[in-house]
Amino acid sequence: MVEHTCRAVARRVPVLVGITDTSIRESLRLAEHAAQHGALAVVVAPPYYFPAGQPELAGYLQCIATDAPLPVVLYNMPACTKTPIELDTLAEVMGHPNVVAFKDSGGDLTYFQHARAMMAERCPDKTILIGPEEQLAAAVLMGGHGGVSGGANVFPRLYVRLLEAAEAGNIEDTRALQGQVLAVSRLYRVGRHASSTIKGIKCALSCLAICDDFMAEPMQRFRPDERRRIQSALDAMSDVCA
Amino acid sequence: MVEHTCRAVARRVPVLVGITDTSIRESLRLAEHAAQHGALAVVVAPPYYFPAGQPELAGYLQCIATDAPLPVVLYNMPACTKTPIELDTLAEVMGHPNVVAFKDSGGDLTYFQHARAMMAERCPDKTILIGPEEQLAAAVLMGGHGGVSGGANVFPRLYVRLLEAAEAGNIEDTRALQGQVLAVSRLYRVGRHASSTIKGIKCALSCLAICDDFMAEPMQRFRPDERRRIQSALDAMSDVCA
Repeated sequence: MVEHTCRAVARRVPVLVGITDTSIRESLRLAEHAAQHGALAVVVAPPYYFPAGQPELAGYLQCIATDAPLPVVLYNMPACTKTPIELDTLAEVMGHPNVVAFKDSGGDLTYFQHARAMMAERCPDKTILIGPEEQLAAAVLMGGHGGVSGGANVFPRLYVRLLEAAEAGNIEDTRALQGQVLAVSRLYRVGRHASSTIKGIKCALSCLAICDDFMAEPMQRFRPDERRRIQSALDAMSDVCA
Repeated sequence: MVEHTCRAVARRVPVLVGITDTSIRESLRLAEHAAQHGALAVVVAPPYYFPAGQPELAGYLQCIATDAPLPVVLYNMPACTKTPIELDTLAEVMGHPNVVAFKDSGGDLTYFQHARAMMAERCPDKTILIGPEEQLAAAVLMGGHGGVSGGANVFPRLYVRLLEAAEAGNIEDTRALQGQVLAVSRLYRVGRHASSTIKGIKCALSCLAICDDFMAEPMQRFRPDERRRIQSALDAMSDVCA
């Protein structure tokens, strides 16, 4: 997968590879693989089966940062890992010279702002990104550097323009574009399960003939009825800047 | 309590009275009491013992809105009520003519922005406020109207200036004042329990000789050691605009 992606991208944009695993060895093996195929950095969240204590988590992340052959982006994703990266742990691990950035998908803007303030003080050259695209604008207005927005797979220009408007402190444009971002999230409310966000994005990309809507097991692509609802949601978004 | 408060305030500022209860009759009795003593509005969250289904919750809130002798502010506080006011329920109940405002303490800025967009479309004359003071600035930059900030009991001027800076779209001042707001939240991390926010505020007010730190049962005021930590946190905040 990394191989195919790096070949298709051909260094036109940076490729960051998720190496989150429940085994530190597997994570490092994936990091080696990513390095061999030209990825720019690896992204690592806490191990997600047995919950680690925060000191154990700090040790784990520092170990990966030390041994990985590429720069590391820390990834807070408690909805999937069960283990949040607490602020003290984050402060400790961000001090590692091979940790270059932090992505926060916790969805709690209070936590995000405390993390941003800590990084601005202790490691101002490192990057902080937000996960939930609905909070990208607010995060950047409050001093964050950017986000990793799922909806940008479908409407890349919208999220780039939103980022630029927020970076420029243009409140009027930011709010108008934010209205479009909230409209895009209709794509995520078609399914009934927690996987509906990813399925909605994959299905929308398939409707737009950008890629197949194949899902890795155990998830299944949307059925024809759900696909029709995604298509009609897309039809209602003709004014979204694609 | 309502009586004492309204007498002390003497109509200089509006008094809003929380009437959240597990009994609709008790809520309405409190609303009558609030009206008799000159309160401006009542604030009502979902009943918080047996969790209501969303259609039941909508009926309950509409019943209170119809029978209360004062305008109603809806209050989303899932951390304490267990039952969130879901967006469809909110849209339904905000249509009631006696519901004048919505306060969201859910802590999820994505939900808040969806609620704001819905209200801007359906009831643009009604007010939307945010609870967590750390998210006040971002909420107002994104179009919210204000907040109910616990820290404003200790540093009222800070939150008023933050609100004004965000309303004016002044990003630089907003970020600088937000740094002070994040510093104030040190007061909330002294205790070990969920009650530490309220205890921190009460204790700080007591250190500043503004009021007693008496807590209603079963909560207990901070002990001398915790009080010393609040005092030294306050000492470190001499640059916060009080």
